[in-house]
Formats: sequence, structure tokens, C-alpha cells
Amino acid sequence: MFDFKLLNKDKKSGARRGRITTNRGTIETPVFMPVGTRATVKSLTPEELEELGAEIVLANTFHLYLRPGDDIIASLGGLHRFMHWDRPILTDSGGFQVFSLSDLNRISEEGVEFKSPVDGSRHFLTPEKVIRIQHKLGSDIVMPLDECPPPGVDRSYVKQSLDLTLGWLERSVREFQECPDPGKQTLFGIVQGGFFEDLRLESATRSVEFDLPGYAIGGLSVGEEKEKTYSMLEVSCSILPEEKPRYLMGVGTPEDFLLAVERGVDMFDCVLPTRNARNGALLTNEGPLRIRNAEFRDDPRPVSESCDCYSCRHYSRAYLRHLYYAKELLAYRLNTIHNLHFMLGFMARLRRSIEEGRFTDFAVETRESGMLG
Amino acid sequence: MFDFKLLNKDKKSGARRGRITTNRGTIETPVFMPVGTRATVKSLTPEELEELGAEIVLANTFHLYLRPGDDIIASLGGLHRFMHWDRPILTDSGGFQVFSLSDLNRISEEGVEFKSPVDGSRHFLTPEKVIRIQHKLGSDIVMPLDECPPPGVDRSYVKQSLDLTLGWLERSVREFQECPDPGKQTLFGIVQGGFFEDLRLESATRSVEFDLPGYAIGGLSVGEEKEKTYSMLEVSCSILPEEKPRYLMGVGTPEDFLLAVERGVDMFDCVLPTRNARNGALLTNEGPLRIRNAEFRDDPRPVSESCDCYSCRHYSRAYLRHLYYAKELLAYRLNTIHNLHFMLGFMARLRRSIEEGRFTDFAVETRESGMLG
Repeated sequence: MFDFKLLNKDKKSGARRGRITTNRGTIETPVFMPVGTRATVKSLTPEELEELGAEIVLANTFHLYLRPGDDIIASLGGLHRFMHWDRPILTDSGGFQVFSLSDLNRISEEGVEFKSPVDGSRHFLTPEKVIRIQHKLGSDIVMPLDECPPPGVDRSYVKQSLDLTLGWLERSVREFQECPDPGKQTLFGIVQGGFFEDLRLESATRSVEFDLPGYAIGGLSVGEEKEKTYSMLEVSCSILPEEKPRYLMGVGTPEDFLLAVERGVDMFDCVLPTRNARNGALLTNEGPLRIRNAEFRDDPRPVSESCDCYSCRHYSRAYLRHLYYAKELLAYRLNTIHNLHFMLGFMARLRRSIEEGRFTDFAVETRESGMLG
Repeated sequence: MFDFKLLNKDKKSGARRGRITTNRGTIETPVFMPVGTRATVKSLTPEELEELGAEIVLANTFHLYLRPGDDIIASLGGLHRFMHWDRPILTDSGGFQVFSLSDLNRISEEGVEFKSPVDGSRHFLTPEKVIRIQHKLGSDIVMPLDECPPPGVDRSYVKQSLDLTLGWLERSVREFQECPDPGKQTLFGIVQGGFFEDLRLESATRSVEFDLPGYAIGGLSVGEEKEKTYSMLEVSCSILPEEKPRYLMGVGTPEDFLLAVERGVDMFDCVLPTRNARNGALLTNEGPLRIRNAEFRDDPRPVSESCDCYSCRHYSRAYLRHLYYAKELLAYRLNTIHNLHFMLGFMARLRRSIEEGRFTDFAVETRESGMLG
């Protein structure tokens, strides 16, 4: 089962407060989904994720297909049991990874050939195969294979790519409908179209024709300038049906959340909060903090006085700096807990502001607070 | 405060069941002390250590003196607050590390000069300074600076080294008595004497003259053959007073625990259970298990069917193998939890067997069980 209910709509912006209901639990939107690429959110247990308030995590089809393999995960009872997480999981299709991580790839209408970054072996993924892999994994939300055009390519490349992705979507939908246990999983569409307004419109319009339960917006986490990125998002969202959730892929700073929620986005995923944590870059209400800084060597204060996460309740900046320099495993954990607590807490406050009809004020306050750095 | 009570003595062996009482809690002996070299037991939180049943951890004076520095730790309220662990801590003197880890060292009667492995800076440690450092750290059990003679050196080297260590002990005792807050910390002696029976006897006899609250036996974790090692332990223990705890430094396999407890040892520390865990070498009642083995790639069973640790309750061998190969941070954590649970559980069973007057049977059963590999 998959249900999306719109609970509140902001009067002064496109911000929406919603609720997704699945067999494995509800997801309050706008939601930030921590990334557990290889069936683990790096350094944390599922119990810790639950305690932090995570309602859904993302895992990666590309990585899990290569190692340990979808057949092994299926034989062990599926991804949820494998990683000991019983709340919803969204699996990325692997398209983005094929194009960004694998050594060599060749795209054809049939699918994409690539060399594994794990062991150099050759693989061929088709839209059908990607659906079958995710069916074996048993994730709750399934993404179709798409091509994410590299930044800087010309209009004709993007147009061709868009047609390819839509052709793949059609085949994905057909394959998805043929999988056993319909209703256990939910397939989203992905809007592409690069940085061309008309192509974004075309991609969104033609994707919506498939009448899917939700739509992702892809290709906007490639490092283009904010203004261009968010005008493309706006164009995409203008076409997407109001009653379906919208998922902006791979985007994840508080500033991005504000810009995207204003334009009607409901779901986010990003590796940054967890990756930055491991690099000692911490988020606080008072602005970003680099734990490696010399000024913290004997600082008895927590990372943030306004934070009540486990790390801030029990450890000083001096201790976290010590762990970071000693490359101690606990450093990654305590920093990850802090950053996820911050991100999930920020989203909770953002949701409340929509409920209470003061999202625009919340956005202004956030921007003026110094939090964004 | 420091009190050691002998609760039970085994009739057929030297095994003893005891209880150490300190200001920060009681320690049931024989005890295994997990090692938290740099003020963290690698990958775990103090809460997890408590849940695993750890009653005392070891930290390292040498490492903490070099980074972040004892003054910083003191200014932050001491080691317990720094690392968020309120149960007892034993700090190693750093002697072993000076000789084994630093690039260059020069020993004199005054102390030891060495080059820091962290940044190449030169340092000079004296027995007095080592006591003062540990006083700043605020550990509960303090070890004096000693020289651990390298394996294979001749009798005259060991004799000289023994005299040096005893001279250092005298100075350590004097310095310790001059520290403020007497009674907050407890100083042990360390028996050395290499692999020469008469020198072990001499070192133990002369150490005991200081009438300290406990004695460590050093120099027996240097890789000598078991028979020689344990005859040296026996000789050392024969001199040590019955009413004081005996601590065998750096030794830590279940087989070692049996051999040493039979000879009257009460305390152990070793990095092996945690280091091996990080290398995927797991301990079980059914014998050692290397999680990397290909046979586990799709094995749905826990590491050990007879284990009820967090890792065994929730994860398959296949998942742990996947995490290990993906070098995922959670691998180190789950494996460390498993091995510490095993070691602390093994010690709990060993203690019960002494209480119930069946230690010798327990030792035979353990040796015949296949657990030791």
C-alpha cells in the first residue's frame, strides 16, 4: 500500500505538509531520507536511526547489485531483514551511479553496459533488470532506470536523453506490473530534461501521463548554480500533480530544503550530512563548525549549546576534536549522530512551521539566523 | 578508596574469585578490562560498554600524554568526564609503549627519552612525571613507569633492567604520596624479571616490600612460548601476597585466562578481542570464525547460535561479511560488540565456576569444547 495525503498547504509559497502511508510505516513530509548506500547508514545502527527520527532510508541498487548481489539479499529475506531495518526503504535505480561511478559505460536504447568499480567485471543493466533487482531487494519505493545527462551537454543531447529515459520508464512500468506481489512496492517516475525549460516541461508532462504514485526530479544535484537549478525545479513541479509526492534527488543542505520546499518538494535524500560528518564538518543552529579547528582543542562546550543530540549531551568539542585527529571510529559515529539529528530536527521544525501557517517566516528566520553559514 | 576482598578460593587450583571496590564502582574478579587506548574503546560508546558488562576499562598514559595532552584532559575535568565513562579506569604507565612504539629511545636511570610517533617531537619521561600525568588524568588505578625488557636479552640485561624498574618504583611511590587527594587513586607495582626464575623471584620479592594495594606482572605478553610464560607467571605469583589483586598485563585469549587464573591472576587487559574484531576474527563458543570466509556469503545464521549479543540477535553472517568487505564502519562496531560480549561473558562464566567450586571442570570443559580453536 502507498498513500499520500496532503495535510496543509502554505498560503504564501508552494510549501506542503503531507503524510505518506506504507505497509512499513508512515512518513511525514517534507522528509529527509538518510542515505544507507550499501545497506547501512555509515557507522549507525537501525536503532540509532529510529531514535534520531528517521522514517525512511535510501539504499542503492547499483551498489547492492554489485555487492553482495540482489540474489543473496533475496535469499536472506530481502533488504529489510538483511540490514535489520523494518521501516520503509527507497532504492535508487543505480542510473546515476552507472554514469558517475563506473569506469566505462555504453548507453543504448536497450540499456547500459558498464564496468564494475568493485572488480572490473562487465555488466549490462536494462530498465527491466533494474526493476527485477529492486523487486528482489524488496524496497518500498522503487526508482526506474534513467539517464542523468552530465552538466554542460547541449540541447539535442538532453532531448535524446529525455526520450531514452521516457522509453525506459514505459518499459519499467510494464515490468513492474508483471512483478509478483503488486502493491508491496511503489514505482516512482523521474523527471529529467537538464537545464532546458521546455525539455523539463516535456519530461514532466510525458512522465505524468504514466499516472504513477510519485515523481522524482533528477539531474538537479550536479552542481549548477542555485538560481538555474531552482528555476528548473519550479518548471518541473508546475506540471507534477498536486496529490502526488515530489522527490528532489540528491539535494540536501538546509538552504536547499527551504528553496525546494517553497517550490512544493516533499522528499529529499543526500549523502552530505553523513559524509560531511565523517569529515568533521558539523551543522548547528549557530552555523557550520569544523571540529578540526585548533580553537576547539580545549573547548569544554558541546558542538552546539542548542542541540540535545547524544553527542552534544555527553561530549565536548575538545573530545570530538581529539577523536577526529586520532582517526578514532567513535568520531565518525558521534559526528554522524549530530548531523543527522540536526537535519531530521530541522525538517521537523520546517514541517511544524507549515502546519502552523508560518513557513515563510520560518524560512526568513532560518536565513537570518546564521545557520546557513 | 580501594579494597580487594577474596570471596572464594578454588580447592584444586590457584583460581580466586574476588571483588575490588573503588569510589567509582565495584569490579568482580577475575576481570577482563577492555582497552580504550586513546580514551575510547574503538567504535563503541560508554553506554554500550556498560551494557556489555564492562566494569573497568584501560586507557594509555603514553598516547594521551602525546595527544591531546594530560593538561588538556585535566582542564576538561579529567579522563572520566572527557570520555564520558564514570566507572573505574586503569591507566597503563606508558613504559611498554615508549619501548615498543616510539622511533628512538634512550634509557637512563633518570628516565626515558623518546621521539613521538605522532609528530616526531622529543620527550623525556621520568617515573615522577608519569605519576603526575596519571594524576592529571585522574584514573583510578595508576601504573608506575617500568622497563619491559625485549625478548631474547641476556640475564645481565634483565638484572639491570629489574634494578632500574625497582628504583623507578621507589620514586613513583614517593611521588604518588606527594600528590594531592590521596586515596582517590591507587598505585600498583609491576613485577618484571624477564624469563629468569631467580630474577622474577627477586623482582616480586622486592616489589612486595613496597606494600602496594595491587601488583601487575609485566613482560609476559611478548610472544614467548606458553610453557615458559606460565612458569614465569607461577614464580611471580608465588611471592605476591594473597590478599592483593594480581594483574597480568597485555594477555587476553580464553586459553590465557584459564592458564593465568589457575595460577592466581585476577585482572587482565588485552587489545586482541577488539583488534581481532576489527579484522573480522570472531570468537565463539564453537571456536574462532573468520567472517571474511566465502562460505558465509549467503549464510543466514548469526555468528554464533549460542550467542545473544546485539550483533548475533539481529544480523546474519552474510550481512557481517558484506559490511566487512565493503569496509563499512558498522562492521567494526558489530564485530567489536560480539567479541567483547564473548570475552566478558566468558569471564562471567569463569567467575561463576569458581564461586560454585567447579573451576577445574570449567577449564577442562572449555578446553574440550572446541572454543579455543
